[in-house]
Amino acid sequence: MSALDAHYMARALELARKGLYSTHPNPRVGCVIVRDGEVVGEGWHLRAGEPHAELHALRAAGERARGATAYVTLEPCSHHGRTPPCADALIRAGVARVVAAMGDPNPQVDGGGLQRLREAGIEVASGVLESEARELNAGFVKRMQTGLPLVRVKLAMSLDGRTAMASGESQWITGPAARAEVQRLRARSSAVLSGADTVLQDEARLTVRPDELGLDDEQRALAAGRLPQRVLIDGRLRVPADAPFFKAGAALVACCAEGDAAGVLRGRGHEVLALPGGDGHVDLPALLRLLGERGANELLVEAGPRLAGAFARAGLVDEYQIFVAPKLLGSDARPLLDWPLQRMAEAQQLQIQDIRAFGDDWRIRAVPRR
Amino acid sequence: MSALDAHYMARALELARKGLYSTHPNPRVGCVIVRDGEVVGEGWHLRAGEPHAELHALRAAGERARGATAYVTLEPCSHHGRTPPCADALIRAGVARVVAAMGDPNPQVDGGGLQRLREAGIEVASGVLESEARELNAGFVKRMQTGLPLVRVKLAMSLDGRTAMASGESQWITGPAARAEVQRLRARSSAVLSGADTVLQDEARLTVRPDELGLDDEQRALAAGRLPQRVLIDGRLRVPADAPFFKAGAALVACCAEGDAAGVLRGRGHEVLALPGGDGHVDLPALLRLLGERGANELLVEAGPRLAGAFARAGLVDEYQIFVAPKLLGSDARPLLDWPLQRMAEAQQLQIQDIRAFGDDWRIRAVPRR
Repeated sequence: MSALDAHYMARALELARKGLYSTHPNPRVGCVIVRDGEVVGEGWHLRAGEPHAELHALRAAGERARGATAYVTLEPCSHHGRTPPCADALIRAGVARVVAAMGDPNPQVDGGGLQRLREAGIEVASGVLESEARELNAGFVKRMQTGLPLVRVKLAMSLDGRTAMASGESQWITGPAARAEVQRLRARSSAVLSGADTVLQDEARLTVRPDELGLDDEQRALAAGRLPQRVLIDGRLRVPADAPFFKAGAALVACCAEGDAAGVLRGRGHEVLALPGGDGHVDLPALLRLLGERGANELLVEAGPRLAGAFARAGLVDEYQIFVAPKLLGSDARPLLDWPLQRMAEAQQLQIQDIRAFGDDWRIRAVPRR
Repeated sequence: MSALDAHYMARALELARKGLYSTHPNPRVGCVIVRDGEVVGEGWHLRAGEPHAELHALRAAGERARGATAYVTLEPCSHHGRTPPCADALIRAGVARVVAAMGDPNPQVDGGGLQRLREAGIEVASGVLESEARELNAGFVKRMQTGLPLVRVKLAMSLDGRTAMASGESQWITGPAARAEVQRLRARSSAVLSGADTVLQDEARLTVRPDELGLDDEQRALAAGRLPQRVLIDGRLRVPADAPFFKAGAALVACCAEGDAAGVLRGRGHEVLALPGGDGHVDLPALLRLLGERGANELLVEAGPRLAGAFARAGLVDEYQIFVAPKLLGSDARPLLDWPLQRMAEAQQLQIQDIRAFGDDWRIRAVPRR
């Protein structure tokens, strides 16, 4: 990999990130076309059903694409989806070289796009800034490889690891800067999920409030046009149809068994699915499979200690984002996760990815060590 | 304050920090003497009873001190202690200007040293890098102003705020780099304190192991020559005289009432003091006053949730140093502090000073907001 390749790929990744809030269920992809040391075209994928990054960049480049190098953050597609294959468009435009950050994560097509380019006589390279590209689309990659969305658990706690007082009082542990970051976490997710306890106790709605995202006009409009699916886990359908959560828009409700309440909810436009697990609770892996089948790349879990603990105990968590407020709530307050462990050897080992300040609060991003 | 003044004072502070582990009960002080843009003498205070920083620097400068500027991190003393007044030595040496980082924190003598210099016709300035100087000697400053040592509570917890499993199993939550930093915390302290629970359960000894300090030879030797007083809070004298804690050297034991056990401990060279509080526990403020009277600048509390919680509840904590290990110990594990609070409004607000990595662990330094 040359320094120039990395330079242009970094720009392509910067473009790709503009789609952070809007490309679902597609990946975020950016493209830069360079000829004789000059950028002649740039593009990024805005929304599913609209042109891919390569097409935007080729249109901008026009005739100057001939003999140029195309930098693209993901292997160009070689199949007819809602848009024609990008590999063909690159061939038609006469580019001389294609550099991809990473291959297509779908194991059934991996390498097909690059192969098609190669066969057309185009010089091909892959793996430039690959880890950055993988991180940007970690959810898409996981779904392509496993059928399941990436599960990100957001928690807000005090410095002594508590999420609420024993009474349930919890508003607000963290400050406005941390809450705005949570808004952005919701907005980038394909789906956001909570449980009946949280929705009943905190009147949580899990909505995205575009004005609180702190984004520029273009990004805010894109986020507002592609809101995440709101998902409620409510085994016994305890949350009434007139709860703020349901008034905020159509939701998906996973329960253990349908009853009269299911009909009421359906009558108001909500989807109700019975996904009973063996333990009297909703079958979380089955729900994840279903969300994956529907194209969810990233699932944000914003739940209380019981439900978040259930995801953790089942080994379903890919990433924790823990917002830590500089205060002590004391030893009677509620735990971070309901997760009874007896011996140090059972402790869940984590790897801390980064720690960053948001106002007076700090966010710790950590992933489980398997 | 000129940039040059700050430059030389930064060097004086660097010298002062060499006394971090050895000047107790005195403050850490450094001195730089500069003439015509050249450093002609440097010095720092090594140990109580030995020359102050100014004398070392003046000796190094010799005749070149005449007409020079002396930078000193603390107002030069004007009283006869174990050594003659430094103000007089500076006057005799003929320095033209004295710059101090901060005044003497003792309210009864504050400004006396600078006044004496001024009366001798020396140009005097104070307040250069004052906050850095105050932080270096925060314990000394507090003791001068209140009679009490600075109370630093060290805690080691998992990311979910737990300090041990329910069984008490806790070794080791954090890794070697964090434990070495705790060794340095002990070594800089005038006294280190724990409770009977910790000493019985973990066989804690609170010793400084010089080879584990990670210091250069000079610093290590200074630290080894001035070990902190070890203090045990054991209301009912439950810890037997043959416990590892007592075998590690002479200790101070604070109890609620003496009994036969007190005599046994005294017979082995330990000091036993009855300091009964109104609540059936040891009177912590009385113990702090006693330690202050004996010259303790910094007290390190390394205790379990009960005793650390008692310091917190009583509002006696000046600083928390929380070492966070990247793991989850679960909701049955022991809390950070035994501190029952009912409402969010009662939460102890903290200000986070810094967050720093030690190996795989992170240290959060926080101070209570009053």
